[in-house]
Amino acid sequence: MSEIKKLHLTAFMRPVSLHSGAWRYPGSYPDANFNLAHLKTFITKLEAAKFDAFFMADHLAVLNMPVEALKRSHTVTSFEPFTLLSALSVVTDKIGLAATASTTYDEPYHVARRFASLDHLSGGRAAWNIVTTANPDSAKNFGLDEHVEHGDRYKRAREFYDVVTGLWDSFADDAFVRDRESGVYFDPDKMHVLNHKGDDLKVRGPLNIARPVQGWPVIVQAGQSEPGRQLAGETAEVVFCSPKDLAGAKELYRDIKARTVAAGRNPQHIKILPAALIVVGDTVEEAKGKRLELDTYVHYDTAIASLSVSLGADASQFDPDGPLPTDLPETNASKSSRLGVAKLAADEGLTVRQLAQRYGGYAGLAFVGTPATIADEMAIWLAEEGADGFTVTFPFLPQGLDDVTQKLVPELQRRGLFRDDYGGTTLREHLGLPRPTNRFFE
Amino acid sequence: MSEIKKLHLTAFMRPVSLHSGAWRYPGSYPDANFNLAHLKTFITKLEAAKFDAFFMADHLAVLNMPVEALKRSHTVTSFEPFTLLSALSVVTDKIGLAATASTTYDEPYHVARRFASLDHLSGGRAAWNIVTTANPDSAKNFGLDEHVEHGDRYKRAREFYDVVTGLWDSFADDAFVRDRESGVYFDPDKMHVLNHKGDDLKVRGPLNIARPVQGWPVIVQAGQSEPGRQLAGETAEVVFCSPKDLAGAKELYRDIKARTVAAGRNPQHIKILPAALIVVGDTVEEAKGKRLELDTYVHYDTAIASLSVSLGADASQFDPDGPLPTDLPETNASKSSRLGVAKLAADEGLTVRQLAQRYGGYAGLAFVGTPATIADEMAIWLAEEGADGFTVTFPFLPQGLDDVTQKLVPELQRRGLFRDDYGGTTLREHLGLPRPTNRFFE
Repeated sequence: MSEIKKLHLTAFMRPVSLHSGAWRYPGSYPDANFNLAHLKTFITKLEAAKFDAFFMADHLAVLNMPVEALKRSHTVTSFEPFTLLSALSVVTDKIGLAATASTTYDEPYHVARRFASLDHLSGGRAAWNIVTTANPDSAKNFGLDEHVEHGDRYKRAREFYDVVTGLWDSFADDAFVRDRESGVYFDPDKMHVLNHKGDDLKVRGPLNIARPVQGWPVIVQAGQSEPGRQLAGETAEVVFCSPKDLAGAKELYRDIKARTVAAGRNPQHIKILPAALIVVGDTVEEAKGKRLELDTYVHYDTAIASLSVSLGADASQFDPDGPLPTDLPETNASKSSRLGVAKLAADEGLTVRQLAQRYGGYAGLAFVGTPATIADEMAIWLAEEGADGFTVTFPFLPQGLDDVTQKLVPELQRRGLFRDDYGGTTLREHLGLPRPTNRFFE
Repeated sequence: MSEIKKLHLTAFMRPVSLHSGAWRYPGSYPDANFNLAHLKTFITKLEAAKFDAFFMADHLAVLNMPVEALKRSHTVTSFEPFTLLSALSVVTDKIGLAATASTTYDEPYHVARRFASLDHLSGGRAAWNIVTTANPDSAKNFGLDEHVEHGDRYKRAREFYDVVTGLWDSFADDAFVRDRESGVYFDPDKMHVLNHKGDDLKVRGPLNIARPVQGWPVIVQAGQSEPGRQLAGETAEVVFCSPKDLAGAKELYRDIKARTVAAGRNPQHIKILPAALIVVGDTVEEAKGKRLELDTYVHYDTAIASLSVSLGADASQFDPDGPLPTDLPETNASKSSRLGVAKLAADEGLTVRQLAQRYGGYAGLAFVGTPATIADEMAIWLAEEGADGFTVTFPFLPQGLDDVTQKLVPELQRRGLFRDDYGGTTLREHLGLPRPTNRFFE
């Protein structure tokens, strides 16, 4: 009896939501950034719905937008991921805990140690989202005037990964004998001193922590650039990506799986999970209405700037409540971007204001519909190899999360597209990933 | 009615104990380094006993002793402090959570952020133990061949403190207005951009986190060197120190309080808490017997090396089961150290083996006796201004902790020397420390 292929679902979280207008949505928790009680509720519901992981997005700077937009933003301040996920590990048993950590602005010894500690605390549920930190404002918080150049960041990231995984392998799984009689706490023959000396990093080791429960915490990678795809193929076990549509997703899926094979790895051991905003309604119209309402909470002044960028034209000159003009001035902006805006305006009959608020709110891939229509779409993405599952973002919290966990997930379960219960206790088990062998010990 | 002065008590923890033989003591939990369940039990008991704080000691390297000693050590591997304390914050409500973080091998933006996050998660219970990381092996895990020189470490530490506290003050306490109607999430006039440019550090800010619940997490400092004492006088709110006896403690107490006053601070706002091993018995003899038994679990080969250092002579030549020879060869070792060993041997009638195991186990200040005799001693230290309380280390766990919380603490409470219950919810309230004003906002 062949088993139906199943989706993997992770929740990509900012405490208030990633949508820039979400904190003003009726029933939202604007104070969730520093209110642990709300986060406990969210993760408990996600675990009850059998999500693979709770994934904490992160930034390393506040000043990444003009002050007029900044003052309206709920996403630039919140709990730090390691401390938050460690706290949340105690109120959950099964759901994975993915933290973002930068290879550009941190030390591999610290990063290896914190993930190993989180993995031990949580009984094998940690994942490391490797980021090279694209935001140039971050550099200024870490002693630099200029951001580290893209190629250099990826080169260091690759070496950083080697060092961190090498540090996780510092001790054999059976190194800690703790033999009261002989007084030997661990076998020094089962301890490896890394002695790494590379172009960017020099780290002796060993790590001052036993090998993680999962061997290595799960490796997540989000880059879509050429070096990002290559890094994913060589190292990632989960890819968090942002294709615009199924065609783009299939191209990315094929490319990253091919790079994985080329790197000598099993393509089953890398899960491609496109980011998707999910808005669930009892009817398609209701879902669309929720999204339109949500977008109205995006401030027009900041929204119009986003639209202007996408159009390559000053959209503040247009009538906000009229349709998008068809006679846009010639510019050297990307034609495909401009065509995309025009298509969206036509498809959904949006005014300039609504278009702007869409681009200022959340412009990425979205599934907006009933549990049945969304399940249909997801099944197609899974069957056509555009995705192994999705990195879910919620339009607003808590209601948008409840809509997914209480309405969409049961529909996916009925169709056999999502697990009815966890089959194991570690994140690797949820994702069907093998436990890595220790490179220094059998 | 004048109130009796009370002791402050913090628990200085390694998961298995700081005593090097403790993991072999009957009933111990040798696996506690990576077993959260044990740590949850410990902190729950400490909170029930109304301890001020749970204080997680830390290291940044494994290779800090010869391999023959290393393989017997349970103290070089364990949970990382931030992840552990964040997890423990969820199972407690009142007890403070003190983490060690290095100013030499970390970035102020990360350190400020993690402590602020822990303070928010825990409702105002975080404390930062500022260390400059004395262990030269740590340097090798962070890209350096040589350890950073002592004076340079303290210079950077002082600047690091200024940056971290400045980052904590990034937002006024009332900056986050979250006004749904106007769409303003925070008032940018209540955000301060630090723009720090100093000799060792350059950090723009602001921190991407609201001001901590306590304003600043409590500042703990452990140095006893000249620059360490000065740093404490200028910055510390709790001093963790290691005087050998009451006379030494009084000198240190006077000196640090004087430096505090000289720095323009209120001497009531710095609490001097000497480290003390506490061994409780129903009789003094029973307590001494527990300690002697504990010392027998220290391996002789490693113990004798510690004794040789203290004597400035090769103690492995002596009869292990005889008394300390009186005709020690002349050396240029410290006379006071040698006299201290001879006095200990005479006072307690210890053999060479027992002496060695004492020095290899835990050679610092210890209170060994009944609840009544220990309370007597503590009362004297408090009255004579040798201490404002103690940084308690347990000889073995869990029994040594139970002895303190179930036997000593009730005795101290009966005498009015220790609180019967917490008077507030934040660590600052437990310690009687004011909430710092924001240097940039009223």
